[in-house]
This record gives sequence, structure tokens and C-alpha cells, in this order.
Amino acid sequence: METEKYSANIVKYIPFLYVVWADDLLSASEIAVFKKAVREDSLSKEERKLISSWLKTETPPLDKEITSWKHLIDQSGIKLVESDNYPLTSFSMKLSFRGNNEEEISNENLKFIEINLGIQPNHYRHLFDIQTRQSPKADFYDPEKIDGILKGEHAPHIDTFRKFLSDPLFQWEISRDKDTFRLRVLEQVKLLASAGYGAMAYEKAYGGIGNMPAYAGIFENLMFIDGSLTIKFGVQFGLFGGSIQNLGTRKHHDQWLKATGEAGILGCFAMTETRHGSNVRGIKTTATYVKETDSIVIDTPGKNDNKEYIGNALHATMATVFAQLIVNGTNEGVHAIVVRIRDEKGNLTPGVHIEDNGYKLGLNGVDNGKIWFKNVSVPRENLLNRFGNIDEEGNYSSDISNPNKRFFTMLGTLVGGRICVAKGAVGGTKLALATAVKYALSRRQFNSGEKVQEDLIMDYPSHQLRLVTPIAQTHVYHITLEHMIRSYSSSTEASRRKIETQVAALKALITDFSNKTIQECREACGGKGYLLENRIGDLKNDVDIFTTFEGDNTVLLQLAAKGVLTDFKSEFNSDSYGDILKLVGTQLSDRLATFNPLFTNNTDKEHLFNPDFHLEAFHYRVRRLTFTAASRIRRYVKKGIPPQQVSLNIQTHLIALGKAYGVMLSYEIFADFVKQIADEKMQFIFRKLGTLYALHHIRENAAWYLEHGYISGNKSKAIRQRVERLCTELRPHVVSLVDGFGIPEHCMTAPISKQ
Amino acid sequence: METEKYSANIVKYIPFLYVVWADDLLSASEIAVFKKAVREDSLSKEERKLISSWLKTETPPLDKEITSWKHLIDQSGIKLVESDNYPLTSFSMKLSFRGNNEEEISNENLKFIEINLGIQPNHYRHLFDIQTRQSPKADFYDPEKIDGILKGEHAPHIDTFRKFLSDPLFQWEISRDKDTFRLRVLEQVKLLASAGYGAMAYEKAYGGIGNMPAYAGIFENLMFIDGSLTIKFGVQFGLFGGSIQNLGTRKHHDQWLKATGEAGILGCFAMTETRHGSNVRGIKTTATYVKETDSIVIDTPGKNDNKEYIGNALHATMATVFAQLIVNGTNEGVHAIVVRIRDEKGNLTPGVHIEDNGYKLGLNGVDNGKIWFKNVSVPRENLLNRFGNIDEEGNYSSDISNPNKRFFTMLGTLVGGRICVAKGAVGGTKLALATAVKYALSRRQFNSGEKVQEDLIMDYPSHQLRLVTPIAQTHVYHITLEHMIRSYSSSTEASRRKIETQVAALKALITDFSNKTIQECREACGGKGYLLENRIGDLKNDVDIFTTFEGDNTVLLQLAAKGVLTDFKSEFNSDSYGDILKLVGTQLSDRLATFNPLFTNNTDKEHLFNPDFHLEAFHYRVRRLTFTAASRIRRYVKKGIPPQQVSLNIQTHLIALGKAYGVMLSYEIFADFVKQIADEKMQFIFRKLGTLYALHHIRENAAWYLEHGYISGNKSKAIRQRVERLCTELRPHVVSLVDGFGIPEHCMTAPISKQ
Repeated sequence: METEKYSANIVKYIPFLYVVWADDLLSASEIAVFKKAVREDSLSKEERKLISSWLKTETPPLDKEITSWKHLIDQSGIKLVESDNYPLTSFSMKLSFRGNNEEEISNENLKFIEINLGIQPNHYRHLFDIQTRQSPKADFYDPEKIDGILKGEHAPHIDTFRKFLSDPLFQWEISRDKDTFRLRVLEQVKLLASAGYGAMAYEKAYGGIGNMPAYAGIFENLMFIDGSLTIKFGVQFGLFGGSIQNLGTRKHHDQWLKATGEAGILGCFAMTETRHGSNVRGIKTTATYVKETDSIVIDTPGKNDNKEYIGNALHATMATVFAQLIVNGTNEGVHAIVVRIRDEKGNLTPGVHIEDNGYKLGLNGVDNGKIWFKNVSVPRENLLNRFGNIDEEGNYSSDISNPNKRFFTMLGTLVGGRICVAKGAVGGTKLALATAVKYALSRRQFNSGEKVQEDLIMDYPSHQLRLVTPIAQTHVYHITLEHMIRSYSSSTEASRRKIETQVAALKALITDFSNKTIQECREACGGKGYLLENRIGDLKNDVDIFTTFEGDNTVLLQLAAKGVLTDFKSEFNSDSYGDILKLVGTQLSDRLATFNPLFTNNTDKEHLFNPDFHLEAFHYRVRRLTFTAASRIRRYVKKGIPPQQVSLNIQTHLIALGKAYGVMLSYEIFADFVKQIADEKMQFIFRKLGTLYALHHIRENAAWYLEHGYISGNKSKAIRQRVERLCTELRPHVVSLVDGFGIPEHCMTAPISKQ
Repeated sequence: METEKYSANIVKYIPFLYVVWADDLLSASEIAVFKKAVREDSLSKEERKLISSWLKTETPPLDKEITSWKHLIDQSGIKLVESDNYPLTSFSMKLSFRGNNEEEISNENLKFIEINLGIQPNHYRHLFDIQTRQSPKADFYDPEKIDGILKGEHAPHIDTFRKFLSDPLFQWEISRDKDTFRLRVLEQVKLLASAGYGAMAYEKAYGGIGNMPAYAGIFENLMFIDGSLTIKFGVQFGLFGGSIQNLGTRKHHDQWLKATGEAGILGCFAMTETRHGSNVRGIKTTATYVKETDSIVIDTPGKNDNKEYIGNALHATMATVFAQLIVNGTNEGVHAIVVRIRDEKGNLTPGVHIEDNGYKLGLNGVDNGKIWFKNVSVPRENLLNRFGNIDEEGNYSSDISNPNKRFFTMLGTLVGGRICVAKGAVGGTKLALATAVKYALSRRQFNSGEKVQEDLIMDYPSHQLRLVTPIAQTHVYHITLEHMIRSYSSSTEASRRKIETQVAALKALITDFSNKTIQECREACGGKGYLLENRIGDLKNDVDIFTTFEGDNTVLLQLAAKGVLTDFKSEFNSDSYGDILKLVGTQLSDRLATFNPLFTNNTDKEHLFNPDFHLEAFHYRVRRLTFTAASRIRRYVKKGIPPQQVSLNIQTHLIALGKAYGVMLSYEIFADFVKQIADEKMQFIFRKLGTLYALHHIRENAAWYLEHGYISGNKSKAIRQRVERLCTELRPHVVSLVDGFGIPEHCMTAPISKQ
């Protein structure tokens, strides 16, 4: 028999050779891996030579050779056990000993190949006779360690909070009637407040611990319970409470902050108007100071100038109202005034009119409403006067003389809200991904014949692409936002503008990612994903609006791009801006020219996996988009084109820049973070997630890189193949990766996540 | 004053020159347009020379020249009236006559430039003082004519049906409680049946008019009322009725078809099982023929082998049940059997167990349920025996001896359902787009200063991109599906396999497009899009599952690709398949090599707008993806790799091929259709829609075309710019284009569509 013609040493390599030649798994750097194993194994010279002869891409083994390997394997009658830690190694050793050895024999060199080539079930499932009814074990990486890394310094807060969420009041259920749903969510908010969670970001004097990052952490975890709860919680403590904390002064804090944190006062944040959402500076509501009564009169001028989509509007007794402040006949711009809208009995105060916004696509547990004010008078002291004050004489003053700057300073204090929105989106994404992954590990569909059970859908390459890529992105965005919330909390007014730019890009990038990912999870779960009991539907509908509120994504991306352009300009002496632009243009061309073909054509794994390559590619794109935008703007300005027309002319360019900037920033933060991970094994998997993130995004913009000659066609193809391959390589660890999100058992309520 | 230095003839061109140089609107072919106008205008030699001197891209006018034009325009005090038919021409003529002429003076040459350069508000909004509070008129193209073209030969049926939909029972309202909603939808279905709409596709003898294309047309229009109604209607008349019509024989038709069309019998289509959705051939339900009683016994073997997501399961008295047919101990494969599941009083028949699937993301007006059968006995005659029969002796026979072929023949008769699903998706998309466009024409946000009102969001380039591109795609897909349903209706068994391949690709392509577009419409309407009253939310949730049911899109794309590969192989003498592959490879390389740089680099408008270029690009991509897939398969097969492993290895490749094939097919059908449009003006706008469709899709795959050297970097950039520019050029016609969808006034119920 043919099988006799090889020594045991050769035979043990045959399943490996068969698998790699049965697919095109071998690139130059990967042949090196195989050769290293062969070199270090105790083989005879002839054996080594024979194996090496089968490792040449120029002269691959003949088809009949490969077919003879197949016969050898088929005739052995040995089965591959998928739940082994190293299935292919175990199989090969059994084959080598022709089943004569009872003990399981391992081989470090084979293991080395199996790991480093990332050989996974979808590479061999139908090549061998498979014996298993279990999912492969997935404990190579400890999920708790991953969770620990993600939680970082807030671990104690998060852990306590997750236990707290096991309270029966938080048990998820389908809610269709908005009024019932809203009351339930209100009870949940009050329970959280009573345990001190609402006040977490406030100072100790007001019931808190002054820890904004931990607050943002629990905010994200609330998404595991319900989107409506998360948003109502955010409106009450983050937006309403936050407006008092950040826009008010000591007297306001003393008067309202503690009660707000305890949910003793329920409040809303009345900024958006029906006709002014994105363009907040153009709101029409007026707040006129009346000297005679030393009061401020709030008024909605036109029928459609009402406040709109105001969360908590049906339950709140107070509202922070944003309005044009008019003092002594002068419009001092938009300011925030605290207004009582209901009395203790819950009746509307005179002049206030509120209507329910009705049913929405999602978040029906949040009571959004429209508010009109008809000459509603409040004491002068209700002006949140941190950035602009009316004194006892009735005169307006502000430390920030430029009204424009004053307006943006006020808005800037609300950037924390945007970080929280993005964190919430990430929380929702985690739950959707964990659910879809669990399902993909129990759902089987199609097979090659009667004898084998059907394939797990997790083992299909298309399924790996659609789930594993976003898992990597989710890790990157989690780390990015943790970094941003810390930067924000410790920021000075000087550093805050930079953070605003960063957060604008990230909020847009991440909420858009979350929406697309949750949608992908729905589709990945087929009909089961469509049933509300499996949670993904509500997650989709709840997170949907995250792309719109707290700043429409399209607008935010342009805002971010404008910030980048401002920084770019301020890098240089603005006197010679034209010369500078020329210089930067030359630099960019030089940078491209110095890439020799070895760079643009380099398809080696080492190069493609190198963070320096990723960072260079992201920087180059941002730099070039910035430069070309700046050049275009300059050209238009020189022709006397008005600014708004310039904005229209380059709008799609700015949006591309905003996105590119967000991607670069996330990867920079993540790559830095990975360097700090002490545990080498953990560092390895996190780096791999970063590599997938980076290559995925370079791939997404491959047309642009190709247009600019930054990568060659071959490199572009190699990047696409690497993305697919990385998804496969991460396949055995998907469970660890989604368990690493730390979603408590009592929150994983979808029936399909329990199979 | 500077303005005096130019003659009136020069002055009238200045606003045009200012606009084109204020943006970069000029390519070589567009300068030709401008020059033609100048040539044909009655100008002096000097005037002509001066204007020509300002039309050189190599030596553009100096910035100070452009600035002086701006001064000339600003100082005139003349306002541009946006609602004029040719705003820039009117403005220029007024400027030329310095306001001295009361009559409105027109100029054909200026109009020629304005139209042919596609100069639109976002090119000049902030360059001039604008006078208008109205939206620009949009009656250049008559929406009724567009609607007429889309309706084609079914126009009378569709028109009558649309009027019928004004019945108060169809009035849209928010439905949250599934039980109430389902009863309402049931009433609606009965009303449609009573008017003969359910039976439309059946023969006259069974109450119909035998017109499947018209049936598909009204099916699409039902989406304007409600997604649940559309689907329940489709389940009752298309799936249940269709199974009797297509899988049954005369006796079944006589017994059940008329009553089904009248909704006297309510039925369901019980194919999918909990563990078998995509892999229908693997269903577990058995139908065993028992000779003793001359009956067939239906049985659900395991707890999880129940029928799942079965529409109409809570209301139906009958079900077409798909099961493994076992006759004399032999499994003859999947067959359909009609089973009574409820008696006249609505009680379940013995052995039948049904559970409600509960709340879903959408379509809550459809009563989906799970069904178990415990030895349920039905007469032998209930076997739908068109493709397989049990005779009186209890012997099985079939005209199709190959069980595989038999199975696919049975499934093939259901391809009409896939076309209808895609048509429904297009209907939903039309309503969402019409709503978003109407909103974008009333919603304003941001402006350049106090004096001008804020800009319409429809005038932002990013908004045009997000709405106009899908409007073009919707027209293309509408025409494509009209073509397909006609082909399907008139198909023979021989041509049907080809149609199956086509429909598989199109159903996946179009339902995916619809989902993404409705989502885009939601976001384009901001907070208003999130309110259920504005309909887009329900459309999103209803259409969502269209990507899954009637064939999961991922599976269908692979099915389509496999069909394409089969055709490819059968093109040639299969004996020398290897040689043929080599030949095709050479042909493809030659095709690429014969493209001289003039082709790969050609960025001229004439070339980029030429359907021959589009068709060549789509064909090339499909051909190359087919060839590389075939080569890979051959390589694997020669190595003895089992088929299922080969499928895994090339899965993502097949999916890319399936999509590319669908895009090519749609464009081919559309381009052919456009040629037949008699009305030249209409032909012009339809061709433009096709151009946008084609360039958009080439752009989507720009990385691939660049990788293969099919287009140069410059051409890729030019295509991107053309896509943006086309969206802008179609901007004045968006209302006509969405009104051309023919959605009746009584169905456009979203408050935001009425502003």
C-alpha cells in the first residue's frame, strides 16, 4: 500500500501539507514558518529534503501527489477531533503512529505550524472525517482577562454595577405600549438613582464620587439592560444634571444638583427646536430679561419654534431651556435658563404647553415631547451663569467677549454627552455581537454528504468576515472611548477644543459603525434575529437614532474636518500660508516618491501586520486630504467666494476627511494602548485585533490608496486576503472575545444566545 | 465704475463665468459646451475673443478678475430668483440690461449652457443675492409620463388598484398590538380578495385574469399601504395559492384554487423548519404513505423539527406542508402535501400543534407561527402531484427521474415569489425616498449670514448623493423586475433555470439595496425620520427581513454564482475545459492589453456617459470573476478536494461574482429598455438615471478595477466626481422623479411629506 512508502516522520507532516495545498494558504513568510518547524524537528536529512521539496510555490506538488496524500488519509480511518486544542496536530500524530499508540502524542513543531499559519476548521472541515458534536473549546484566551483589560481602572465600579443589574426590576421584557414602558423605565431610573449611580459624575457634596469615566462605564453597561433606560438615565443625570453642573455656578449646584442625582427633581434638556436641530445657534426661543421684575421671560415666538424631541418631557418638573438671551435690547446669544415646567402635583406651570412626540422607531420607553413657552417668567438667578451673567443692576457680562467663542464654549462642556452616546452605541454592539456569535456556534446549515453533520455557520468565511471584523473594531473603539473620556475629564479649557474635534469624528464614526454592525448581526441570525425576544431588533431600533442625536453624524464629520484644518493652519506661520501649502504638497509628493516599489508592492505578512505601516497609511491619508482641502479653500477664498459656498463646494471632501481622521485617531490610541499591556499573551491577541482593524480600514479605502499610487494592485489584493485570513485565524477565539465584553449572564436573555 | 467697462453682451456671460470658475465645473467636453454657445451667439469678434480668453483651463482667469466679477454682480443689486425655470440665465440677462428692461428676456445660448453644464443651486446659492421662498419649480419632466413608463402595459390595472386603495380600511395608522393589527390586516386581505385582486395571477376559471405581471405590480403597490398587508397577501395568494397552482394538478385547482383566491380558504406555506431554513432539502418533517389506509401521514420527528415563521399560521385552515415523502420505505425527497390544520370553527385538527412566533422587528400584522404535526393523516390525493405522484396501487412515479432535479424543479416554480419580494422591497424604497425628498425640500438648516434664509438640505451635495443615487437605482431596479416578471411568466421549463439564476442574484442585490436605502432615508430625515408617524421606521423594519426570507441573500448570491459558472462551462466543449480556461484567460488579458491608455485614462464626459463603456466594464468584471472562480475550482478538483470544501475556499469569491452578475444584468435590461422609449425627452432623463446607476456601481468597485489596471487613478477620480455631479444635475428633477413613482396622495400620509 502506498501509505507504507513514507516514514512516520513524513506521514505526520502529510495532513499539514494536504491542508495548505488544498487551499492557497502559503505566502513567502508562511513557508518560512513551515520550514522553521521542519528544521527544528528531529528528522533525517532525506526526510527534511523530501518535505522541503513539497514547499516550493514555484514548483508545487503535483496534483497526483496531493491526491495520493488524500488516499493515505482516507484509508487510515482516523478521525479528526475538532474539539482538540490542536486538532490538526493530534490528527497528524495519530496518523503517523497509525493508531498504534493509545496515548495522545503531541509535537511542538506541528503545533507551531498550526498556530502560526492560523489553520482553522474552514480550511479542513471537508478534507477529513470529522469526529465531534461539540463546538471547539475556546479557552485559549481567558475572557475574564480580556474583560479586565477593557474595564481598566473602573473594574470595581463596573463589577458592582453589573451585579446590581441582576435586580428583577431590570429583567428584560418586550414592551409595546409606550405609556407602560415609560413608567417602568422611570422606576428603573429611580432605582439607579437611589443606589447613587445617577450622581457618580458629580462631586461628593452632591452625592457623587466625581468620577466621570466610571459614570460613562456604567452608562455603557446599561445598554445590556435596555436602550430606553440608558437614554432616559443619560437625559436626567448627564444632560439635565450636566447642564447644571457645567453651565451653572455654585448656587445652582447647591440648589439642584443633589436632588437631581437622587431623581428627586426630574429634568429635561430643552435645546433642539423643530426647525433647529443641527444649527442650534439659530434657535428662536427667546429669554428676555425684564428689569422691572428682575426676571427672565421665556417665549416661543412661532408655532414651529417649539422645543422638540425633548427626553423626559412628560415626566420632568424642570427644564434647562436654551434660548436667545436678550438683555437691554441686545441679543447676547444662546444661553441656558432653568425653568420649572410642572408643579409638585405634576400640572404644567402657566404658559407651558407640552405634547407627546408619540411612537418612535425605538426608545419608546423614553418620553420625548414638544414644549412651547408663552411668556414664562423665571427669576434672574435661574440663568446658568458660568459663562455669561446678568448682574443685580441688570447688566450682562461675560468673561468670554467673543459671542461666537462663548457659544462654543458652552456647547463644549457637553462633549461628555457625545462620548457617552458613542459608548452606549458600543455597548449595544457588544450585546448584538455576543448574541450573533453564540447563535453562529450552534446553528448548522448545509453539509457535504449524509455522513457528516451540517457545518456551523460560524465556519463559513462570509460569516467570519461579517462578525469577526466588527468584533475587532468594537475592541478598538472601546479602548478609544475609554481614552477619550479620561482625556475629557482631565481636560483644561485650552485642551478642550482639540477634544471636541476628536469626539465629533469619533461619535460619528462609532455610531455609524454600531448601526451597521447591529444590522449585520440581525441578518447573520436570519429569521431568529428578527424575533424581538432575541434582542437584536430593539438594539437596532434604539441605537438607530444615535447617528442623529447629540449632533447629526454628517454635520459632526464636517465639524471634525474643520477642526483638523484649523490645527493644520495653526501648525504654521499663517503669514506665508500659501508658501506653506506648496511646501506641504511637495513633502507629500516626496513621501510618496521615497516609497520605493518595495513599499508599494510589499505584500509580506510582517510588513502588512506592522503597526508602523498602518499608522503611516492612516497619517498619509489624513495629511493629504487635509492638504488638498486647505488648498481648495485657499483657491476659493482668493477668488472671493463666500465661506458658505466654499463649504458646499468641498462638503463631500470634508466628510471624507472627518472619517479618515476618526479612523486614524482610534488606531493611534489603540496601538499605544496595546504597547502597555503587560501580559504578553494578551498583548498578542489585542495586537491582532488592531491589525484586523487597520487592514480592514485600509481595504475600505483601497480605491483611494490605489488612485494615489500609495499601494499597488497586488498589495491591495494581499490586504483583502489578509483581512479574510485574520477573521479565520480569530475564529477559535470568538467566544473568548465576546465573553470578554463582560456582559453578565442575567443580561444575555436572548434564547438564541443560550443554545 | 468697473461694471461699465464691459459691453452688455459680455456682462450677460459674467455670472456664468463666475459660477464655473467659483467651482471647478469645467472639463474639456464642458468647455466645448460653453464655446459652442459663444460661437452661436451674435457677438462681435472682440467679445467672442474676450470670453474665450476666460475659458482656458491652462491659463484660468486671474483671481482679481474673478473678484472683479463678484463686485460687478454685488453692486448691481439684482437678485437671483431661484424659482425661475432658468435662474442663472434670467439673472444674467437682467444684469446685462442693468435692470432697465421690464420684460423678462431670455437667451437660448445661455440656457444651453445652464442645462448642459447642469448648473444647480448648490453651485451658486451663496454667490448671489437670492430671492425666493419657494422651492424651485420641478415640472420640466412630467411625473405622470414617468409613472406611465414605469407602469408599462399594466397601467389600467395599476391605476384602478391605486384608486381602490383609497378605501378607508386601508388608511395607515400606527399599530402596536399584534393581535389587533393582525385582525385588521386580515380584513384588508379579505377586502382585496373580494375585489378579485388575490386571484389575478390565476386562470379565469378560478376567478383570475391569468396575469402574473399585473399581480406583481399590485403587490408592489400594496407596500404603499403597509408591509404586513403586502406579506400576508403574498402568503395567502402567492405562496399558498401558488403552491396549489404550480405544484398541484387539475383536481387540486378545481378543489381549492377559487376559494383560495376569494380568501374563503386561508392557507399557509409550511416549508421552513427551525433547523432548516436555507438548506430546505434537509428538512426533517416526514410524509409517509400508508397503503392500508391509502393515506399520507405527516409527522414532525423531533422537538426542533417544527415548521417555523409560517405566515398565516394563526388564521389558516389549510397548509401546504413540505416533507420528505416516504413511499414503500423509500425516501423520494421533498414533496408538498395539502393538510387541513383547523376545522371550520377554527379549532386545531387532531395532531396539529401551533404556537405564535410572537413579536418581531416588523411585520407584526402577519401572524407567523410554529407548527408541529403528530401523525396527521391526509388522503393520498392531497399530495401536490405535478412533479411526483403516488398511484392507486401505492407506487411512486415521477417524470423527473433525478431526485435532485425534481427538487429544484419544484422550488423553481416558486421563483415568482422571489421576484415579488424584490418588487415589494422596491415599493417600500419608493415610499421612503419620496418621503425623504419631500422633507428635504422643506427642511432648511444653516446659512451664510443673517440676510439669506437657511439652505434647503436638498441643496447640500452630501444630501444629493445619499438620495439621488438611490432614486436612480430604484428606477433601474423597477424596470429590471418588470422585465423579469414578464420573462418568468412566459418562461418554458427549459428557460427557467436561467431565470432562477438571474432572480437569485437580483433578489439579493435589490433587497439589500432597499434596506440600505430606507435606512439612509431615515437618517436623511433626522429626528423626524425616527417618528413612526412618518412611515420610514415601519418600512425599515418591515423590509428588513426581505434580505432573509424567500432565500437568504448570502446563500442566493452563491446560488447565482454557481448558475453563472454552470453556464460558463456549458459555453464550451467540456472535454477540453482546461484548454478552454487557458484560452479565456488569454482573451481576458488581451482585452485588457488592447485597451490603450486612451481607454484606461479616458475621463471625457462622452466616454464616461457612454453605455458601451458601462456594459464593457460590467461584462469584464463578471467574465473575469467567473474565469478566476472556474480556474480555482478546477485546480482544487484536480487535487481531489471535496466539493463542499471547495465551496468554502471560494465562498467570498462567489458572493462577489453573484453581486457583479446582478449589477450587470440590471444595467443590461435597463439600457435596452431606454432604447425603446419613444419620447426623446423622457429617454434623455432615463438614460441619465442609467448613467448614474452605472458610474455609481463602477465607483463602488473602483478598487477592483484599479487592481486589474482596467481604469487609471485619474479615471477613478473622474468617475467619483461625475457621480457627485450627476446627483447635482438631477437635483431640479427630484420631485418629478419621486412623483413619477405614482404613489397615490392617499398613501403619502407622513406629515413630513406634506410640508
